[in-house]
Amino acid sequence: MVSLIPGFNSVVTWAVFFLLLWTFSEGRKLLVVPIDGSHWLSMRPVVERLRQRGHEIVVLAPEINLRIDSSAHYTTKTYSVSYSKEYVEAEFKKLGYKIFTPQPFLEKLAKMANITTMFFDSCKRLLADKQLIKYLEESAFDAVFMDPFFPCGQIVAEHLSVPSVYLLRGLPCSLDFIATLCPNPPSYIPRFFTRYTDRMTFPERVRNVIVSLSNSLVCLFLYSPYDHLIKEFLQQEATLLELLSHAAIWLMKYDFVFEYPRPVMPNMVLIGGISCTREKSLSQEFEAIVNASGEHGIVVFSLGSMVSEIPMKKAIEITEALGSVPQTVQMCYHDLTNQMTKQVFLSSTAHPKTRAFITHGGSHGVYEAICNAVPMVLMPLFGDQMDNAKRIETRGAGLTLNILEMTSKDISDALHAVINDKMYKENIKRLSDLHLDRPIHPLDLAVHWVEFVMRHKGAPHLRPAAHELNWIQYHSLDVIAFLLAVVLLSMFISLKCCLFCCRRCFRKKGRASKPTKSKSH
Amino acid sequence: MVSLIPGFNSVVTWAVFFLLLWTFSEGRKLLVVPIDGSHWLSMRPVVERLRQRGHEIVVLAPEINLRIDSSAHYTTKTYSVSYSKEYVEAEFKKLGYKIFTPQPFLEKLAKMANITTMFFDSCKRLLADKQLIKYLEESAFDAVFMDPFFPCGQIVAEHLSVPSVYLLRGLPCSLDFIATLCPNPPSYIPRFFTRYTDRMTFPERVRNVIVSLSNSLVCLFLYSPYDHLIKEFLQQEATLLELLSHAAIWLMKYDFVFEYPRPVMPNMVLIGGISCTREKSLSQEFEAIVNASGEHGIVVFSLGSMVSEIPMKKAIEITEALGSVPQTVQMCYHDLTNQMTKQVFLSSTAHPKTRAFITHGGSHGVYEAICNAVPMVLMPLFGDQMDNAKRIETRGAGLTLNILEMTSKDISDALHAVINDKMYKENIKRLSDLHLDRPIHPLDLAVHWVEFVMRHKGAPHLRPAAHELNWIQYHSLDVIAFLLAVVLLSMFISLKCCLFCCRRCFRKKGRASKPTKSKSH
Repeated sequence: MVSLIPGFNSVVTWAVFFLLLWTFSEGRKLLVVPIDGSHWLSMRPVVERLRQRGHEIVVLAPEINLRIDSSAHYTTKTYSVSYSKEYVEAEFKKLGYKIFTPQPFLEKLAKMANITTMFFDSCKRLLADKQLIKYLEESAFDAVFMDPFFPCGQIVAEHLSVPSVYLLRGLPCSLDFIATLCPNPPSYIPRFFTRYTDRMTFPERVRNVIVSLSNSLVCLFLYSPYDHLIKEFLQQEATLLELLSHAAIWLMKYDFVFEYPRPVMPNMVLIGGISCTREKSLSQEFEAIVNASGEHGIVVFSLGSMVSEIPMKKAIEITEALGSVPQTVQMCYHDLTNQMTKQVFLSSTAHPKTRAFITHGGSHGVYEAICNAVPMVLMPLFGDQMDNAKRIETRGAGLTLNILEMTSKDISDALHAVINDKMYKENIKRLSDLHLDRPIHPLDLAVHWVEFVMRHKGAPHLRPAAHELNWIQYHSLDVIAFLLAVVLLSMFISLKCCLFCCRRCFRKKGRASKPTKSKSH
Repeated sequence: MVSLIPGFNSVVTWAVFFLLLWTFSEGRKLLVVPIDGSHWLSMRPVVERLRQRGHEIVVLAPEINLRIDSSAHYTTKTYSVSYSKEYVEAEFKKLGYKIFTPQPFLEKLAKMANITTMFFDSCKRLLADKQLIKYLEESAFDAVFMDPFFPCGQIVAEHLSVPSVYLLRGLPCSLDFIATLCPNPPSYIPRFFTRYTDRMTFPERVRNVIVSLSNSLVCLFLYSPYDHLIKEFLQQEATLLELLSHAAIWLMKYDFVFEYPRPVMPNMVLIGGISCTREKSLSQEFEAIVNASGEHGIVVFSLGSMVSEIPMKKAIEITEALGSVPQTVQMCYHDLTNQMTKQVFLSSTAHPKTRAFITHGGSHGVYEAICNAVPMVLMPLFGDQMDNAKRIETRGAGLTLNILEMTSKDISDALHAVINDKMYKENIKRLSDLHLDRPIHPLDLAVHWVEFVMRHKGAPHLRPAAHELNWIQYHSLDVIAFLLAVVLLSMFISLKCCLFCCRRCFRKKGRASKPTKSKSH
């Protein structure tokens, strides 16, 4: 049969396909509680795919936000916040600028506490919004899909009595591993912000243990305000940690070509490299630029979406260094969440002529580089970026520079090395091959598990019984104490018996010997 | 185009398909070291699938074996053994018969030691076969795919310097978790043969810790003979445990609908339910029998491939009980590795009219029942079967009987319960739904990882750095001792300082007060 209208057949086929998809996918209802900024970047594709599979999506976002735009893919419900858009933008700008000046540790900690306070304040306002909560209660969601960095989503999930799925790279003070009761030995698992590898010297292991112990204190400091909120809103005595431990599935942005191998729990699903696809369309304009670069190819420069301004001195140094290589430099500067800038960035890193990637070491960028086998020059700025840079450096797939101290020569040397020393390309190629050789794409895996939780109302069969034990029981300390007591008691009794026997023998001997003595006497 | 020969088109299509598969699959060479008996049942489908994907397979089997038949799928290479086929058959028969009489613990242990000795003896003969070893050396294998229950495969893999992939349900004395350095807290992970669940009382936890501690002793007793063999053949000082820890991937026949949730390591891939497919063709004859059973349906009876004879008294009791239910009983008796018997067994459990499954609780049968949502009456005989039965019973998907003590009434009551009490069917249906809702079929997963190891010459990126630490370092005992010493030392110094200060103050006071005293005096 030949169609009279060109393309009509394919339109019909697609219409039938989507109709079938809609019919058989048993569309369910999902509440999404995301975090603004780069965190939203890896959540959005999952949300969009879930929508395509026929689920109804409601995104719960703060009314002031930079990246979570309204979309045809989902309904957006907003809650009021105490800050203005200008304030957030100014804060981001300040944060980006401050990176280039040395900061004392306490100031960094204060900044972290500031973000937590901002989240806590937003949470209070969300939970106080009676109309919104009523809407949520009436919506009969099948699950909550959330970023646990903003833990308010779990309080909402508990209130609605629906299971939750988390998407994360990691939580402050190893809260993710504490909440899942995932073994986390400090002897070979370096804590975040230590910049250690999985092979530590004795002094490093000592510091790692100290950091590990102090984590609980930091957690207490950061998250204790929530306990009161939980009591007030949920009418139950529970800590935030307990609530987080109820999550059905933890989608971890983890892949062991990048992370250090470590134990995981059954309800952790590893989806590192979720954004990695090799089908990136290039605009003709961009293709022309790349082709003009000739045999030398291009170098991609991006410091992520947080840095909007670089101090003049630093900028001159960077520009000088970039001018010293024969490669054309593709600058992907600020606002990577803008669809067009992002497209240029993705196309650049994916292009076979890309020789190197200068990055701040955010996990998105690093996974993009691994995906496309591009060696890196890393200029970590803050957060987990120092650790990310260390991981890449240990694997010989890039070089790290200190953003505060680097000179134009340092940048130029590092760039020349990763471009011309074959080792870097070979190592990143090997990592890339391992990363891409997977039985199922991480995006499909993430979608499967969100749907799984919606279909089965959670995943209780993946929850270890360890959650019912207290700390002493979990570590078998009561059993060890009991066994020690038994051993000591039996040793004591044996000793007493021995002594008693000896004494009797001795007395008998004494008695026996006395008459002899008296005789001899 | 219409083909002149019926079916010609499809033949051509398939031929082209296989040709393409052959061309693009980069056929590699795999050495398979299996174990005879039921262990081979779950390995065979993987081997066959790998063959279909264009790999060349060599199976290394003892010359005397019951199930590993020669096949078009692979080349079989045999090594001599010290026993005859009649001996093995007689031993199996004896083993099957002995199950029905009570056995003291030491006799059971002796039997286990017997099997280990038999394996050790086979290994010695294999490694001494110069011609065979020469053939293996010249064959340039890409990987060894083996059952670590017969650890000789790993010695061969080390000798050939090729990576290995294991397929297993579990190893004696938790050797699998010790070798992978997988955390295994005895507080909620019951040890095999204890019949405990993951929720233990205090006395149970005490016993579990004791069993856990004694495991190392049992391992030492069972596997120490290999150390000498390793030294002799590989010319290196290494224990069997060290060798096993080199495995690239551990394909674990695990699914958490059946197993208790627990930590796993990155190089463990869970493939529980690998044999579960729902496409089972029924013979017309069998279909007629099932249809004749009417509304009551059928009950499937199978005590696995080990039991060839049941003592008359027990047989009468079982027959009486089976006669008491209105269901038709399908007996699948002995030799389940026979293709036809196996087909009848698989078709029976998969049939929608099957109401219950009487089983010895072998993991194959249990997974088959979960796959097809058939409630079970379990009569565990030996090995892991008691634990398997306990797992199913805890989940409310079956009832367990003691094979030594059960009467006809017990069997009949249990059978009536699982057939008529809806709870059992509902529970097994829930487990089945969870089990079947997976992003990728376990067989595809197993094949992917064997091919992964062949392609990348191992999976070193999944090996934790913990393997480079000793026991004290792994548990951070040296760090704890150091920190304790520092704390105690600083306390001691502070105390000394305080005392010194006090003494000085006191002395001053003393000196100051003396003249007063003398004055007053």
